[in-house]
Amino acid sequence: MRALRYDTRLALVTNEPDPSPASDEAVIRLRLAGICHTDLELTRGYMGFQGILGHEFVGEILTESNDWKVGQRVVGEINIACGHCDLCAAGIPSQCRNRSTLGIDRYPGAFADCLRVPFRNLHAVPDNVPDEMAVFTEPLAAALQVTELVPIQPSDRVVVIGAGKLGLLIAQVLALTGCDLTVIAHRPTPISLLDKWGIHHVASASQLPRQQAHVIVDATGNEQGFASSLDLVRPRGTIVLKSTYANLPKTDMTRLVVDEVRLVGSRCGPFDKALHLMVDQKIDLVSMIERRFWLDAALMAFQYAAQPGVLKVLLSP
Amino acid sequence: MRALRYDTRLALVTNEPDPSPASDEAVIRLRLAGICHTDLELTRGYMGFQGILGHEFVGEILTESNDWKVGQRVVGEINIACGHCDLCAAGIPSQCRNRSTLGIDRYPGAFADCLRVPFRNLHAVPDNVPDEMAVFTEPLAAALQVTELVPIQPSDRVVVIGAGKLGLLIAQVLALTGCDLTVIAHRPTPISLLDKWGIHHVASASQLPRQQAHVIVDATGNEQGFASSLDLVRPRGTIVLKSTYANLPKTDMTRLVVDEVRLVGSRCGPFDKALHLMVDQKIDLVSMIERRFWLDAALMAFQYAAQPGVLKVLLSP
Repeated sequence: MRALRYDTRLALVTNEPDPSPASDEAVIRLRLAGICHTDLELTRGYMGFQGILGHEFVGEILTESNDWKVGQRVVGEINIACGHCDLCAAGIPSQCRNRSTLGIDRYPGAFADCLRVPFRNLHAVPDNVPDEMAVFTEPLAAALQVTELVPIQPSDRVVVIGAGKLGLLIAQVLALTGCDLTVIAHRPTPISLLDKWGIHHVASASQLPRQQAHVIVDATGNEQGFASSLDLVRPRGTIVLKSTYANLPKTDMTRLVVDEVRLVGSRCGPFDKALHLMVDQKIDLVSMIERRFWLDAALMAFQYAAQPGVLKVLLSP
Repeated sequence: MRALRYDTRLALVTNEPDPSPASDEAVIRLRLAGICHTDLELTRGYMGFQGILGHEFVGEILTESNDWKVGQRVVGEINIACGHCDLCAAGIPSQCRNRSTLGIDRYPGAFADCLRVPFRNLHAVPDNVPDEMAVFTEPLAAALQVTELVPIQPSDRVVVIGAGKLGLLIAQVLALTGCDLTVIAHRPTPISLLDKWGIHHVASASQLPRQQAHVIVDATGNEQGFASSLDLVRPRGTIVLKSTYANLPKTDMTRLVVDEVRLVGSRCGPFDKALHLMVDQKIDLVSMIERRFWLDAALMAFQYAAQPGVLKVLLSP
């Protein structure tokens, strides 16, 4: 089959062996996949990953089983958990100590004609949710993890720093809470989407009052974004960290102590709730699709997705 | 009166004018004061403070008033709040936006024969609590703020990094919760105290399993202490930051995101609960007194207190 692999370099191969599923795994035929910032990072050496990339996908089941129909459309959680460590027992399989991660860490990913995924990781896609929306389940779930970890009140002043793919999903999720929301965005495409969604935005952190926001979501992954978060958060406020950071940022830890600020790291989120929001059409996902490539043009798709400010790039088999 | 001032240098003056209290302030005659790590930092330029140092004290009231008796023993909260900003209104006067801070920030401190303190900041010292314990109210309250901000369960594995004055108070407070507690301590005096209190300790973070602790309290205030905190905390665990940090530590923010760790900055705490613990004799404070100096020997006391590993140094008028 065809597969987009990263070994020493990114390459589309046509002779990848078909997946050999274990007894608890389904084989899924890809219908649509999304390129994430993490995929770009992996091709720069993050995690030391080698193999088939891709973790945002919607596909259809090829494997006979009792609980699933062949041909059923599914999405899949990306953490392959052991089910028996202390963190699995504590109900946090996404933090399993023995986990591998689809297309990210020692498990082959979704940028291929077919992939294998444990049955327990699958969620059925409701009929009224088209592939173009379902392919956003994984990043929308990650956005929802912000409100899972930090309850947001309608009276809260909330700022999202970084209006990329994930930042825009987080902004839409936060807007549902009725909070007093501002997004820091300076590129034309995010600005036009925020205007369309009726979400307030400013071009720079310097346009906002210092130390006034109850909650900051830093979706930048850079030192400057975190410094702005510290400037904007009010004492006893919360900063949610939503992106991995290059290198080791220098951080003003004393400010965290004196102002009694909370920092909350946030990663994967609830697929069921993400699908629920799609059924109710509460989130505009389709407007965030920047361009669609055939899997045969995956290298071109990666080049395109790596340009600054590009939103979601999809791969069709 | 006598007062220990820091202006361009630390100096004991004998001609300091007596305090001129506002109508909402009491004049307090000092009975006993404690030297804190923050006092040492202030003499190195922290906060740009100038004036009379000192914020840990017990004294007796000299001012006539309806609610307080002359001669009554009191301790005092150190944040002088405005009472009308949004954070005061939110019930967090310790984070008042217009606050000054006794002996730390634009308010004269306690290392003097007398000091002035707003009546609303005062707490009566119960009769069975001697001065030698009452003088610990401020730092013990700061230690209690850990459990105020982070509920600790008896089943939690908790590690305190840094067994200085504050770390040892935090350790004693945490021991009361019945949690599975370990303190990282390598100096002889803290080790003998921990042994006396029956609190488990190890000499270095490398002796503890990685990523297993539910809660870490970093009372070191240095980059290495925070790096150890990140090594020891389990995914979805909490790191409480309890000391101000010199410079801007480089921090592995990506670990916070991937492991969904929480960071909680913590500062001043509840005086009433600290006094309650003293009444019940639940905390061994007197063993933490390293040495007592007369106020006339305050410069010598500061030199003594600045030596590595020295515990509480007191000043008597």
